[in-house]
Amino acid sequence: MLTLFYAPGTCSLAAHIVLEEIGAPYEARRLDFSAQQQTSPDFLSLNPKGRVPALSTDRGIITETPAILAFLAQAFPASGLAPLDDPFAFARLQAFNSYLCSTVHVAHAHGRRGSRWTDDGAAIETMKQKVPQTMAACFDFIETTMLAGPWVMGQDYTVADAYLYTMAGWLEADGVDPARFPGVLDHRTRMAERPAVKAVLAVLKG
Amino acid sequence: MLTLFYAPGTCSLAAHIVLEEIGAPYEARRLDFSAQQQTSPDFLSLNPKGRVPALSTDRGIITETPAILAFLAQAFPASGLAPLDDPFAFARLQAFNSYLCSTVHVAHAHGRRGSRWTDDGAAIETMKQKVPQTMAACFDFIETTMLAGPWVMGQDYTVADAYLYTMAGWLEADGVDPARFPGVLDHRTRMAERPAVKAVLAVLKG
Repeated sequence: MLTLFYAPGTCSLAAHIVLEEIGAPYEARRLDFSAQQQTSPDFLSLNPKGRVPALSTDRGIITETPAILAFLAQAFPASGLAPLDDPFAFARLQAFNSYLCSTVHVAHAHGRRGSRWTDDGAAIETMKQKVPQTMAACFDFIETTMLAGPWVMGQDYTVADAYLYTMAGWLEADGVDPARFPGVLDHRTRMAERPAVKAVLAVLKG
Repeated sequence: MLTLFYAPGTCSLAAHIVLEEIGAPYEARRLDFSAQQQTSPDFLSLNPKGRVPALSTDRGIITETPAILAFLAQAFPASGLAPLDDPFAFARLQAFNSYLCSTVHVAHAHGRRGSRWTDDGAAIETMKQKVPQTMAACFDFIETTMLAGPWVMGQDYTVADAYLYTMAGWLEADGVDPARFPGVLDHRTRMAERPAVKAVLAVLKG
């Protein structure tokens, strides 16, 4: 049995959507970040990182979105959510996910989690000010060089689409007008129409 | 034919070591960062990110270290550098690589590339000051919860070992005494004795 630990507004949305797309049984357990549940002793004993997403499996915990997404695609090959038999195509998919994880998410985090990288309050404010610029640069790069269309990798819908959708949902809050990136905006609109995405959003609102 | 674009002192070392471990023919092309070769029109036409590592293959370019490492393990399965037939074990390996990429490397980058996230010179200085603390926290986490021993994933040497070795090599320059992490230091010492690592270091010095 798979259990996803998630929190609304975080990158756990990507794994949540993919679990729903696969259609296998899973449990989704919400952590209340306002009550610091992610750093409670119970959760830390399961995931010492104290973050989401964390996917509990019969064999142990998996963390880090790119690892979880590739795992779900591999563990449920019939879902067709990654080009599993083509190392080059799989690498391109992974490069996209890695870019989201280590560049886009990191740019976003400087608006909310600046204290990870400086103890100076004024410095944190200057980081926040740059977020609209760095996030726009990331999405300009995605729009012009990475988003093959109609899906991230081209004709085939993959786990990367759920991940891009997650980060594209942060644009407005990060001070970026998504209309600047029509390809990304169109992708986001089409994603929002998928039954799996609607099902997850309904859970998040509930 | 595989061609690795690399630069000394960067995370391209991980892919370089793995290529050498595999033993298949490859070319290593050094980019001179002091001459900004990574942002030259020629290189940007190949890799619009303007960064290393970039692995050129017959089918196109692959970027992002976790993607390159998994690709090399999958494209050369006989090398045994990843648990390819076990999605859970592969996910654990990928989670380790993703942590290095999105947390450890990002912590390190705040000492040298702070201008990515702020335009304020004083803020950049405060970021530099925190690097010894954030890097030590990362390596404390690696030492206590992730490094199974004798290799990262346990008994089997994998691509994750080359990646950890790369980042562990930055500790002194980041103001962290590696003696604080005896498991990591022992791993680094054993890595340095591997013929593949010696061969790559000789190229870097040349």
